[in-house]
Amino acid sequence: MNRMDWVDLPDLKTPFVLIHKGRLLENLRRAAAIAEGAGIRLRPHVKTHKSVELARLQQAHGAAGLTASKPSEAEVFVRAGFKDILLAYPVVDPERVMSLLQAADRAGASVTFIADSMEGIAALARAGERFNRIIPVQFKIDVGLHRCGVAADSPALERLALSLREHAFLTFAGLLSHAGHAYAAKDREQLLEVSRSEQRQMAFAKDRLAKLGYPDATISVGSTPTVFTSESFVGIDEIRPGNYVFFDLTAVRLGVASVDDIALGVVTTIVSANDQFYIVDSGSKALTSDLGAHSSGGAGFGLALPLGDNGAKSETLPVVRLSEEHGFIERRESRLPIGTRMLVLPNHACPVVNLFDSVAIHDSDGGPDLWSVNARGKVV
Amino acid sequence: MNRMDWVDLPDLKTPFVLIHKGRLLENLRRAAAIAEGAGIRLRPHVKTHKSVELARLQQAHGAAGLTASKPSEAEVFVRAGFKDILLAYPVVDPERVMSLLQAADRAGASVTFIADSMEGIAALARAGERFNRIIPVQFKIDVGLHRCGVAADSPALERLALSLREHAFLTFAGLLSHAGHAYAAKDREQLLEVSRSEQRQMAFAKDRLAKLGYPDATISVGSTPTVFTSESFVGIDEIRPGNYVFFDLTAVRLGVASVDDIALGVVTTIVSANDQFYIVDSGSKALTSDLGAHSSGGAGFGLALPLGDNGAKSETLPVVRLSEEHGFIERRESRLPIGTRMLVLPNHACPVVNLFDSVAIHDSDGGPDLWSVNARGKVV
Repeated sequence: MNRMDWVDLPDLKTPFVLIHKGRLLENLRRAAAIAEGAGIRLRPHVKTHKSVELARLQQAHGAAGLTASKPSEAEVFVRAGFKDILLAYPVVDPERVMSLLQAADRAGASVTFIADSMEGIAALARAGERFNRIIPVQFKIDVGLHRCGVAADSPALERLALSLREHAFLTFAGLLSHAGHAYAAKDREQLLEVSRSEQRQMAFAKDRLAKLGYPDATISVGSTPTVFTSESFVGIDEIRPGNYVFFDLTAVRLGVASVDDIALGVVTTIVSANDQFYIVDSGSKALTSDLGAHSSGGAGFGLALPLGDNGAKSETLPVVRLSEEHGFIERRESRLPIGTRMLVLPNHACPVVNLFDSVAIHDSDGGPDLWSVNARGKVV
Repeated sequence: MNRMDWVDLPDLKTPFVLIHKGRLLENLRRAAAIAEGAGIRLRPHVKTHKSVELARLQQAHGAAGLTASKPSEAEVFVRAGFKDILLAYPVVDPERVMSLLQAADRAGASVTFIADSMEGIAALARAGERFNRIIPVQFKIDVGLHRCGVAADSPALERLALSLREHAFLTFAGLLSHAGHAYAAKDREQLLEVSRSEQRQMAFAKDRLAKLGYPDATISVGSTPTVFTSESFVGIDEIRPGNYVFFDLTAVRLGVASVDDIALGVVTTIVSANDQFYIVDSGSKALTSDLGAHSSGGAGFGLALPLGDNGAKSETLPVVRLSEEHGFIERRESRLPIGTRMLVLPNHACPVVNLFDSVAIHDSDGGPDLWSVNARGKVV
């Protein structure tokens, strides 16, 4: 593990989120290369970083459009000038659709929505009608996470397709899936099987849609683990990874990244110590209690490495418990003084960024920088 | 369980935090009665709510001063006019002490600090000297959580006491503990044993301090579970509960509150449904992945009950999994339509509030209100 690669920013008070720009750019290039190699569109999910600055870098690295979770989150990126947004969340409240459409109209942006229920279709139709605007709608297919979506072989998919004909202000825009159950995979073979199964299910759904009068449905799939494991993207038109910009210990556990690919850490200070633990100033209000995505994951809340002179000498140490403002780090044989700064690699980067108003950037080719987490707190 | 007691605020988009003001006031009265009955000071911890409005209510209900976690958090309350703050966190960086002292000076407030190491003493001494101000210092005693603090019988406590004499700008202000290991208690008897043991250890430390030339040390103890279980407060001068304003499922698990005492929920909407789950628009970015305080707790991420007409008919349902923006709620035998709003009682209220910029208040005697989470994001 290349720990000396990380540089502290001593002017900033801990805890703060530190982004390793060199690694970040390498991760952006990797996703761009996957999309380019397969001849498909890259539409990264901004929920991971919620940052306009970072989305611009994604755009400069092959992203054709963005994906967002909630209307208020999407609106931040629409207002910042992004012209092509997919709202990958089943909105069932027409008012939220309308306020996003209004922002999109002003900015000259297009927004695609998803639906998986009659209630969702009705909400989109009402918004389209009130706003006199044709709304592109993708159907969400449940490929195994059992969260949102309808099964590829379900009568519900047919009902969705038929219902679209009844609404003049809705237009079919393709099929979409998120194989989030990939996070429960035990090894690369299981991960591969999740993405193969996703591709089979999406192809099956596409065939059914063709028979229902919607030929050539575009297929959009998400999830960093499946996208970074897949050996083939036959039948896929678009990928929507999110977490890949930073990766985290979950990505390492799944084998889709190494510890040296992780581009986000939380810098923290040892404020106390006892026989068993270093106590650092990052607890669940800085690291979150997430063990991994979709309630996956195992024991521990991160991996800590000392920064500065102590960095080269000491092993990495596990964060074994969190209070709200304190992290408990196993000391093992180490003897670090109080005041030592450490970098904690988190289990799950996405909810960590969501706790901070800004993140610090270390760029080995330039000075440090602060990026706003522009869409933090945009949960509705 | 009295579920019809909760009222929805339909003008607000989900997810949002809803405070039941009647229950909140009852919880404030309960703490005030405990303090008054024992003839001791109540100095509640604001980390739970981070709200100036709520702190004012605490002040109106017997609070003599406030407790805060981080200097930047404390500063918010100092600026809002609170005159007596205890910073119950071992700060080891003199700069942070100085900026808080500056704010306190301007506002005419007093701030007491804690220390458990020579590094902490040195940081406080440096700040006091630079600022030409006498700083009151409490020593943190580790009574079993093994987080911060020195053991009551340790040589370290003696070293702390002796070091104080070397610093003209520091003055001894008593002993402080937080029995956070109470959260791991299995029943009331274990809880009682934790608080009895805390009282014994604090009395022992007080005796030692007296022999070292510091007689009559005041004793301050914290933690909602121990404070709300203790049958006696002999030897205690001050209690610092935090979570009690809202309580949560952790307090219910520990037997210090009933479900009908919980004053905080997250209102959420069913946006999708499958055979097993309702999918609601509250995930780990609204409920957090916390299972309980200090990494305690069991399975599940909350308890959901339908609001409105469906509230009276349906049982409460467990939240069994979280994505970032989705909660998975077990359907069991229920058949709630998409669009139904539910109230989720969280495992741990404190980090939930920390995710929101404001919280909604329902007051049966008045209209709805919004309170700012003034110290959200104040982590340094």
